[in-house]
Amino acid sequence: MVPHQFSRCHSILKMLERSTSTTNSFTRKLSSDSSSYVSVQDDEEIKELAILTLQKKPINTFCPNLLRDFTIAIKNIEQDKIKRAVIITSAFPGRFSAGLVLPSLLGKTLEEVKELWRWLQASWLSVYGTRLVTIAAINGHAIAAGTAFAIGCDYRIMAEEDYLAGLTVIRMGIPVPFWLSTQMANLLGKQEAAKAVQLGTLFTSHQALENGLVDEIVPLNRVFEKARQEVPRWLDIPDHARVAIKQDLRQSLIDRVNEVKDVEVDQNAALVMQPNIQQNIARALKRLKERKNNKPS
Amino acid sequence: MVPHQFSRCHSILKMLERSTSTTNSFTRKLSSDSSSYVSVQDDEEIKELAILTLQKKPINTFCPNLLRDFTIAIKNIEQDKIKRAVIITSAFPGRFSAGLVLPSLLGKTLEEVKELWRWLQASWLSVYGTRLVTIAAINGHAIAAGTAFAIGCDYRIMAEEDYLAGLTVIRMGIPVPFWLSTQMANLLGKQEAAKAVQLGTLFTSHQALENGLVDEIVPLNRVFEKARQEVPRWLDIPDHARVAIKQDLRQSLIDRVNEVKDVEVDQNAALVMQPNIQQNIARALKRLKERKNNKPS
Amino acid sequence: MVPHQFSRCHSILKMLERSTSTTNSFTRKLSSDSSSYVSVQDDEEIKELAILTLQKKPINTFCPNLLRDFTIAIKNIEQDKIKRAVIITSAFPGRFSAGLVLPSLLGKTLEEVKELWRWLQASWLSVYGTRLVTIAAINGHAIAAGTAFAIGCDYRIMAEEDYLAGLTVIRMGIPVPFWLSTQMANLLGKQEAAKAVQLGTLFTSHQALENGLVDEIVPLNRVFEKARQEVPRWLDIPDHARVAIKQDLRQSLIDRVNEVKDVEVDQNAALVMQPNIQQNIARALKRLKERKNNKPS
Repeated sequence: MVPHQFSRCHSILKMLERSTSTTNSFTRKLSSDSSSYVSVQDDEEIKELAILTLQKKPINTFCPNLLRDFTIAIKNIEQDKIKRAVIITSAFPGRFSAGLVLPSLLGKTLEEVKELWRWLQASWLSVYGTRLVTIAAINGHAIAAGTAFAIGCDYRIMAEEDYLAGLTVIRMGIPVPFWLSTQMANLLGKQEAAKAVQLGTLFTSHQALENGLVDEIVPLNRVFEKARQEVPRWLDIPDHARVAIKQDLRQSLIDRVNEVKDVEVDQNAALVMQPNIQQNIARALKRLKERKNNKPS
Repeated sequence: MVPHQFSRCHSILKMLERSTSTTNSFTRKLSSDSSSYVSVQDDEEIKELAILTLQKKPINTFCPNLLRDFTIAIKNIEQDKIKRAVIITSAFPGRFSAGLVLPSLLGKTLEEVKELWRWLQASWLSVYGTRLVTIAAINGHAIAAGTAFAIGCDYRIMAEEDYLAGLTVIRMGIPVPFWLSTQMANLLGKQEAAKAVQLGTLFTSHQALENGLVDEIVPLNRVFEKARQEVPRWLDIPDHARVAIKQDLRQSLIDRVNEVKDVEVDQNAALVMQPNIQQNIARALKRLKERKNNKPS
Repeated sequence: MVPHQFSRCHSILKMLERSTSTTNSFTRKLSSDSSSYVSVQDDEEIKELAILTLQKKPINTFCPNLLRDFTIAIKNIEQDKIKRAVIITSAFPGRFSAGLVLPSLLGKTLEEVKELWRWLQASWLSVYGTRLVTIAAINGHAIAAGTAFAIGCDYRIMAEEDYLAGLTVIRMGIPVPFWLSTQMANLLGKQEAAKAVQLGTLFTSHQALENGLVDEIVPLNRVFEKARQEVPRWLDIPDHARVAIKQDLRQSLIDRVNEVKDVEVDQNAALVMQPNIQQNIARALKRLKERKNNKPS
């Protein structure tokens, strides 16, 4: 097998070619690409920047449709040669994402559960492996898949009020895939990551900063603006060089996921179908509903 | 070779099967399994928890017999299906372990030294690779092999008084095996680990906490209770999922050890037999005895 | 392929043999090996220590000649069996090194640029892979290649006044090679390294300490003395054991560089020859000259 560093200069040279070709002929129509679950907009000032907003009411739970829309949105931005960066955020202040939608895992056929896992892998790789600068503007709780997509980005800014972030799915008996524990270790160090992913730890914003789960915290109402202000620092760097290094740092994990992804889908889907896991999911869903009903409306 | 993540779901499914089978028929007789060097007891309240106490007078120096008893104790707890966690501690407050017993390395035959190394590898792997939650209650100095077993655990609580921990054997000219420098790097980060294992650094309790060598420090008389209080957090997580992640994080190092373990035994034993290393060991032993004799009795 | 840990004991035993052979017959003539760009001197008190001083006026920019002299100096010290440690420092307080000399990259033939890259690889490997204890006494700004050589050492002491260190070459569109991003990750952790190498971050001395880029900071006029004081701690450890561990920690990266080094030279030289990169270099050079001219003389 060719070591991943070989592929590097090929892509550098390709990017250099591309950057000298005519990008003006490309018609931008990103703002019209919004689905009901994901909106993509051009930034008003920074023309290289797209804003990807999760907008599935009420708390951006990831169902296969949202995962698909999200993946397509990333790919569309990538294909726009003018775009060099994307901010990922939520339309609902206080709620970045509550993770996978539990009913998508409950009482489904094996094939349906496999489909969910396939989209989860594909969408995460689309964020983790993109040439774009990726900045997570975590404007609220980021639970499970919410945290997964945030840690796939290059940079994370989180609201400093008492919001929570963490990979919690193990609490229902579903271990996070190795690519998430690996990326957690890249951010937290191996021992802290080992504890966090085995215990399903939820970090408050301040704990998230201290542990390296996020790069910065600011008041909720400044998260988005701070994310925009971070962008020029990254755009100052020539893309072909930044992407070459991003590839050096990330390609080997991407390759490992690709090697085992079908087996992983089969195994995780089989696990989710187990009666005791189904019971755990049903119980978690019941608790969520009870909590909702107990809230004053 | 099959990548280690493939083996993951196999073990998940096996663990799930096991957890639904009849565990009640299993007769527990752990508390009677104690040898003179290691005692294993059921926790009085948490039935899933075993307490493994090192009790070789006066300072738990590891000879082949203690290493063997220790390994067997871990294996026995593992085979008890009710047990899910183990606390490893010392019967002697202030002295967790002083490391390998020097006379076991001095004036022995090559075969005897090889035997010691084999047990050291086997016992460390039995801790590092166990399905059990492993918590080190470091109630005193943890020198050399004492630190080695502690860092093989999932979690470490150390007495906060001025106790010392570190991998010091390099001072006699014996480099720690690569599995210990790797696991040190997992806890301390690579540069701090590089310094610690090359210089044989001893850390005070507070330095150990700051550097990530231990997860928590508390007063000596609270170490054991704090370790017990840590257990439920880990038992809350379904075993099959926790173990799957532990395997993701640890299997590749275990595989690497297994690939080279016979060569390592041969090489390390040959090194220990070198005249200058024998002199270093003799000198260290002499210093220890002089220090003992100078103490008021 | 033989895993790198196999080669370990071979070298241990060879070093042991060597340390018992007659080292006195070796004639030391290090102090006379100085070229105009690099000076090598014996330490006055610690006979195992050599001092390697960069002395290319005015700011130690690395041209092929300096890289070659530097590499040869390291190799010469290595061949002196009495020498066990080297301090790398600059003859010009306030200026450790300004990195590669830009004219060496501008308007040159492909073969000339390749030659520069070959020496850069070779010189970095000579530092990173040496049996010697390597201590960087960073007595001033350490930019680009200046930082590269410092992070290849075992230990770094930096002047605490507001000096700068960092791998900045990406700002001209040249990505650092994977071996530098890997070693940065060993010091800073992966996420902090990812930011630093993608953004070409310059750290002040205090930031360098906080982030693990250096091990210690002291006032400029104490940097060299502090580096000398650090040496005995490392010389206390038997070389064969320290080197065995250093090899465990560093050999796999060295092997990876060696596998791809010719391809890397070809690709990086081709990149540097690209018109837009040549423009970036010309622009950076112009800015440097303007800055110089604007200074009161």
